Amino acid sequence: MNEPADRRIRQDDIEDFGAQLESWRLRMEGALAARLPEAHVVPGRLHEAMRYSVLGGGKRIRPALVFATARAVGLCEDEVLAVACAIELVHVYSLVHDDLPAMDNDDLRRGRPTCHRAYDEATALLVGDALQPLAFELLACDPQLSASAAVRLRLIDMLAQAIGTLGMAGGQAIDLAVQGLRLEIGQVEDMHARKTGAVIRASVLMAAECSPALDPNLYNGLSRFANAVGLAFQIQDDLLDVTGDASTLGKATGADSEREKPTYPAVIGISASQQRVRLLHNQAIQALAPFGQRAETLRSLAHWLLSRQY
Amino acid sequence: MNEPADRRIRQDDIEDFGAQLESWRLRMEGALAARLPEAHVVPGRLHEAMRYSVLGGGKRIRPALVFATARAVGLCEDEVLAVACAIELVHVYSLVHDDLPAMDNDDLRRGRPTCHRAYDEATALLVGDALQPLAFELLACDPQLSASAAVRLRLIDMLAQAIGTLGMAGGQAIDLAVQGLRLEIGQVEDMHARKTGAVIRASVLMAAECSPALDPNLYNGLSRFANAVGLAFQIQDDLLDVTGDASTLGKATGADSEREKPTYPAVIGISASQQRVRLLHNQAIQALAPFGQRAETLRSLAHWLLSRQY
Repeated sequence: MNEPADRRIRQDDIEDFGAQLESWRLRMEGALAARLPEAHVVPGRLHEAMRYSVLGGGKRIRPALVFATARAVGLCEDEVLAVACAIELVHVYSLVHDDLPAMDNDDLRRGRPTCHRAYDEATALLVGDALQPLAFELLACDPQLSASAAVRLRLIDMLAQAIGTLGMAGGQAIDLAVQGLRLEIGQVEDMHARKTGAVIRASVLMAAECSPALDPNLYNGLSRFANAVGLAFQIQDDLLDVTGDASTLGKATGADSEREKPTYPAVIGISASQQRVRLLHNQAIQALAPFGQRAETLRSLAHWLLSRQY
Repeated sequence: MNEPADRRIRQDDIEDFGAQLESWRLRMEGALAARLPEAHVVPGRLHEAMRYSVLGGGKRIRPALVFATARAVGLCEDEVLAVACAIELVHVYSLVHDDLPAMDNDDLRRGRPTCHRAYDEATALLVGDALQPLAFELLACDPQLSASAAVRLRLIDMLAQAIGTLGMAGGQAIDLAVQGLRLEIGQVEDMHARKTGAVIRASVLMAAECSPALDPNLYNGLSRFANAVGLAFQIQDDLLDVTGDASTLGKATGADSEREKPTYPAVIGISASQQRVRLLHNQAIQALAPFGQRAETLRSLAHWLLSRQY
């Protein structure tokens, strides 16, 4: 295949970026482990199942968005670590509940048995139920978060909105309601914007909120970046479900079409979906223009996210 | 039956108190209805199921504790209305999830089909998942709550702790783990303290927290009151499951023994359990002594709660 030069350079960037991601991933593993209740504390089985679900797997994409945004707005990783943890906890809660038999009934997640398979349904239900308040508790009083009380309240509001019925839970409800239906692409986009987009958007904008004196122009740039990346990420996910490899992904492929879920590839085809990812990718990069060099990490992350094969 | 005079007077108090409870109940119905997403807004089925689960039933015992405590610490109902709503929302979320087939598998709640019966399991799961963030959102930014940012953060922390693994979710996990086991009474008490006690305690102490200049001595009195009432309330609940009438309760009776749940009556017998309720009732009233007349409503509520037949 005859790759253009800029495409090749980009591939090099992505490989370099792997070391950054791995360093963030390790940092998150430690930060989450320190914030989860210990397995030897009563109720031990619940605590163990929470640690099983949260630790030892996952690409930590949302925390990476938090860290990369922090760098763009002049904050260090420590200052947003609790935000990254809170977001990852609600993300994991959503995975554990979505995997339940009443929802997607998945056996495999991150290459291991899903929580309800490794434990039981009741425990998986409680794992999700208990991860939510832990996330809000971190935003309210994690000592490593140096945000003012007013900023903490805005962060709590943003997270609550991102996972409520206008966000993630609402997106999941739409997803269940439309299985087997023919949707317009606008409806698929609305579902995606809630189901995945809302928390990705929150990852970027909550990090930005930790820098309260941020120029509104820069904040708007991040908002446009987050919208474009959020949607592109989900289309990419839909594409990987069609074209990806189960062993690389760590979960079953073809699940969407089996469940007759309306996805981007199902509604507009694979090639048009790939085209849409490229367009959104460009929009995302353009939205970061006002940041200049400061957004280099965020750009690399966008490149990496939208070129991923797993 | 030869009732002592003070017992008769108490009974009159309880009847008078019914009007107060009904007024609070109606107030809560309106406040909750205004804070829940409308059923005509997408995703309509989820919003409808949330309204079905939250509205039109329930004694609103926890909001009553919030209102009665507010009166004792010199606040009006308006000032704590958002706190009462947040607590009732998490209470309802716990009922909806506890009723699921993977948990207690109940068909009837508040005299109507449980949420997963009226809708479906996936929707009931999402109803609970979406009520949690709504509760935190109210504490973070409900305009009717006049608390400072610092007080709001403490309220969020208190609610998060009350429903996390050291509170309600942890109590439910213990409840599931010990079915069929023989427990010491101390273990039953620990389970009750988390499963029901934590949110009852939060109802009292979150209302007290809204009065930040409160004398620590009074705060401690409320804390002791809340612990005693929380435990007595759960023992009363265990007793009603053995001695109560299903049509009055609006839910099935005998369910605890059928599931081999360790309860107070199962471990120490009916008569000793009734004795323990009376003792805790007295402790609760004594704890309010420093308040004098100001805690009259809270005393009446305790009398009503611990004499209820449903």
